[in-house]
Amino acid sequence: MPADLSTALLTERHRGTLDKALEAISTRAYWTPYPEHPKAYADAEAGKAAFDALLGHRFALDQPGIDAWTGGERSPYGIELGIEYPHPDPDVLLPAMRAAVPAWRDAGPEVRALVCLEILSRINARTHEFAHAVMHTSGQAFTMAFQAGGPHAQDRGLEAVTYAYAEQIRTPQDAAWVKPQGKRDPIALRKSFTAVPRGIGLVIGCNTFPTWNGYPGLFASLATGNAVLVKPHPRAVLPLALTVSVAREVLAEAGFPPDLVSLAADRPGEGLAKTLAVRPEIRIVDYTGSTAFGDWLEANARQAQVYTEKAGVNTVVVDSTDDYRGMLANLAFSLSLYSGQMCTTPQNLLIPRDGISTDAGPKSYDEVVADLAAAVDGLLGDDTRANALLGALVNPEVKARLDASPRIGDVALASRTIAHPDFPDAVVRTPAMIKLDGAKPDAEAAFMSECFGPVSFAVAVDSTGDAVELLRRTIREKGAMTVGGYTTSPEVERQLEEVCWEECAQLSLNLTGGVYVNQTAAFSDFHGSGGNPAANAALCDGAFVANRFRTVEVRRPA
Amino acid sequence: MPADLSTALLTERHRGTLDKALEAISTRAYWTPYPEHPKAYADAEAGKAAFDALLGHRFALDQPGIDAWTGGERSPYGIELGIEYPHPDPDVLLPAMRAAVPAWRDAGPEVRALVCLEILSRINARTHEFAHAVMHTSGQAFTMAFQAGGPHAQDRGLEAVTYAYAEQIRTPQDAAWVKPQGKRDPIALRKSFTAVPRGIGLVIGCNTFPTWNGYPGLFASLATGNAVLVKPHPRAVLPLALTVSVAREVLAEAGFPPDLVSLAADRPGEGLAKTLAVRPEIRIVDYTGSTAFGDWLEANARQAQVYTEKAGVNTVVVDSTDDYRGMLANLAFSLSLYSGQMCTTPQNLLIPRDGISTDAGPKSYDEVVADLAAAVDGLLGDDTRANALLGALVNPEVKARLDASPRIGDVALASRTIAHPDFPDAVVRTPAMIKLDGAKPDAEAAFMSECFGPVSFAVAVDSTGDAVELLRRTIREKGAMTVGGYTTSPEVERQLEEVCWEECAQLSLNLTGGVYVNQTAAFSDFHGSGGNPAANAALCDGAFVANRFRTVEVRRPA
Repeated sequence: MPADLSTALLTERHRGTLDKALEAISTRAYWTPYPEHPKAYADAEAGKAAFDALLGHRFALDQPGIDAWTGGERSPYGIELGIEYPHPDPDVLLPAMRAAVPAWRDAGPEVRALVCLEILSRINARTHEFAHAVMHTSGQAFTMAFQAGGPHAQDRGLEAVTYAYAEQIRTPQDAAWVKPQGKRDPIALRKSFTAVPRGIGLVIGCNTFPTWNGYPGLFASLATGNAVLVKPHPRAVLPLALTVSVAREVLAEAGFPPDLVSLAADRPGEGLAKTLAVRPEIRIVDYTGSTAFGDWLEANARQAQVYTEKAGVNTVVVDSTDDYRGMLANLAFSLSLYSGQMCTTPQNLLIPRDGISTDAGPKSYDEVVADLAAAVDGLLGDDTRANALLGALVNPEVKARLDASPRIGDVALASRTIAHPDFPDAVVRTPAMIKLDGAKPDAEAAFMSECFGPVSFAVAVDSTGDAVELLRRTIREKGAMTVGGYTTSPEVERQLEEVCWEECAQLSLNLTGGVYVNQTAAFSDFHGSGGNPAANAALCDGAFVANRFRTVEVRRPA
Repeated sequence: MPADLSTALLTERHRGTLDKALEAISTRAYWTPYPEHPKAYADAEAGKAAFDALLGHRFALDQPGIDAWTGGERSPYGIELGIEYPHPDPDVLLPAMRAAVPAWRDAGPEVRALVCLEILSRINARTHEFAHAVMHTSGQAFTMAFQAGGPHAQDRGLEAVTYAYAEQIRTPQDAAWVKPQGKRDPIALRKSFTAVPRGIGLVIGCNTFPTWNGYPGLFASLATGNAVLVKPHPRAVLPLALTVSVAREVLAEAGFPPDLVSLAADRPGEGLAKTLAVRPEIRIVDYTGSTAFGDWLEANARQAQVYTEKAGVNTVVVDSTDDYRGMLANLAFSLSLYSGQMCTTPQNLLIPRDGISTDAGPKSYDEVVADLAAAVDGLLGDDTRANALLGALVNPEVKARLDASPRIGDVALASRTIAHPDFPDAVVRTPAMIKLDGAKPDAEAAFMSECFGPVSFAVAVDSTGDAVELLRRTIREKGAMTVGGYTTSPEVERQLEEVCWEECAQLSLNLTGGVYVNQTAAFSDFHGSGGNPAANAALCDGAFVANRFRTVEVRRPA
């Protein structure tokens, strides 16, 4: 390869990491090559300066078919980013991307994986810059933007590369096939097997986790030989534009056409994703967002493999606990983190109306609700800590839902406004909790639909058995990215497991320490199951990568 | 397991075979546990007697929800089978099947694989009986019905079990996750991972290869923990009814509910597949048949994963050869086998109008066509051999297409009728070959659609380059299960490879001996690619099994 990044250099840099990642997905023990603590990265000031230098300018990308420049991102913290991005003419860009594919296909699975690791490695080195970009598009607090938008997103990207690589090398490149023919000479064939990509993958980004939710599809498609067109959410373009920029730089240095990874920023109100998703060149779509558009994609982008993560209703069943304070603290954190604006945040807390047994004695439904409200208040009592946990509301729709929530039921915990010392225009709000009676149909209409944002429902149910059945129905009808359960009863544990096995949802039991139901770790935890209405794929497993390429066999006489 | 078939016994019988199969799919060298020669099976007479005993009777299956008995199969060899099969009430049968799933899920991947191998082993032991059933439903000649319907189908079933097993054990059952926390104690979680099935898989069988095309989906779904409902083609019920019967017998002996595998035979003209395919309990559909119904399934069975093998147009590019006689003999066999009624039979032979170079000197287009016609005539000159190769036309539609073919273009090879000594009512016909000019639009209208059956088109093209481009367009627009090529030119080889890599089709080059473009061997060759319009899945690879189950994680503090 006549390129700055030779295969030998890429191998030296990354083959060891790839091997460790392959090991990790088979043991699912704790592992990451990307430290999560900001202090592990030396370039805090340079990263901030790099981010600042982007503001108010055109974002330089030399991809083909630029027919306009578009932008308009406004940070949830109140500042205008003022960045313009290239708008594509699909009739120019898509053929250029398609033309880039054969060279990438011919590189083979290992070189593709190593190039992807170099891309991730350079993104990792710029994590501070990315953190500001994620913070000022998603509204995440800085530390979360740094971790979830940086190393944790990079982990998910690397995990996808690892699965993609493993899948492609399951079939050998060559085989000698010799079939005995009794007394006659055997028949012998020489066979070659080539992993061939589907074409172009379209990644449709989301507002809240542009990198974390974008990287799995991006890297899974790229590592399997496809070109990738990245269509960011109009309010969260920058983190993915930076990603595309790094990918193009690495591809060019490694001797490949940079158009393999391109950006498609849309004009306000254009709905470019809808146009692109049904183009014949687009053979894979990865999408995170609303159920309505996810369903539309599944129904209409029939020429493509469509991977969707949509809305769901996450439930926690509260039956009993031997660590009442730990449970309250853990739940309070889960409800508060990023103002509940995670697809994994619990929404419905199902609590028996006759109360629960705890290590601190029996607690009535009202006591549990009041104690949890107090735990949230305590956690967020200090404004500095509140700001560090909550971040800003990502968009006005979330604020509108929060403001409307007191009309749904009795308010157990009222949302407060927190002032942000650095960003006076940021909308920072503590979560609200609403009491609902699970037996009342009008209450059910509320808690059986997703209320995305910092609103949870403390639902009184007749018994734990009823809670389990309501959990089953919620997963089956509405989907769930996460399920939580607190119980000291082996029988209830078994019931919760059975429901999650049958309805296909990921279950966290009795979390009372520093792991939260809304967080998953790459290489070990699956994000979603792919088996209930919330998502048709899990991050990340064999099914997520196996159909992004096909294997073409050529056989000839030996 | 309080059952006749203990896990220990199943392990003793089949674990070694499973290990060898796992090895085979990774090396893709020649391997099979099921001998293909009829003489390797001792029970020829008993098998025939068992088949005869089925004729004219109700087929005993004690599954729930039988609301009628239906039948009406007539052998392509002219005899009425007179067998009646249970017709299901889906409202009774499907809930019973669903209720059987948790026990099967809890058995785990290894026990499921071993039970599947026991089913296959018992089917293998009854291969003679199955051969008669396949012969008298598909019209295949006995030896082909024996091999393709017997050991080769069993191979494809075992291959699917093997991939399914390998896929499910990629994630460990348990993991210990320990995340360092600097100076504080690490966070430790205990995680379990369970392969959970989607629900019920529906297998929609075809007329021509009821077992060979049915087994991959059936065993892939069953081995991944699903129940399987088998809806055979109304003209080819018996081979799959026998299969269901064996599966139920083994499941019961192994202590599992036999309803995990059930039969759905439809009434004449009922279209039961359409009703079943959109039932909410059906989460997987495997289908082989027409493009029209395959497209309907993909568009409408949205609650299910849908795997389809549909129509395609298979091409052979004839550029040059260093073994002219071998090429002619190989092509003649491919065109004749089972009267061209294979989804893999070549249809369009693209031959440069200026002729080709061969080891026997240059040959004009007309010479190549005449020599190939003569080779077919020679191969089928003896009626006994012709009957053994051709089998009977499977249905009147195939005969109608064959009879209409002389109107399409100049007849290079006319179809003859062969008398069958044992079955006077069998419709046995030699293949027809029609000459067409690839440059003429009306000719293109003919050769660019599938003419299923013993009709091939010798298409004159301006050059090999034109042939390669026509090949590309044919695969892209119509799909292809197979592509053949004959050339002595490394450059043309490379062009053919490039087209097949880009358009995703399986290529056989310069076959002149005892392997034919329309035959694939399990464990080594892929059947279809899953990447062109002829099929959305390949038999068999990771993608064929990975999405038939999902992995549910349960995590708790360690």
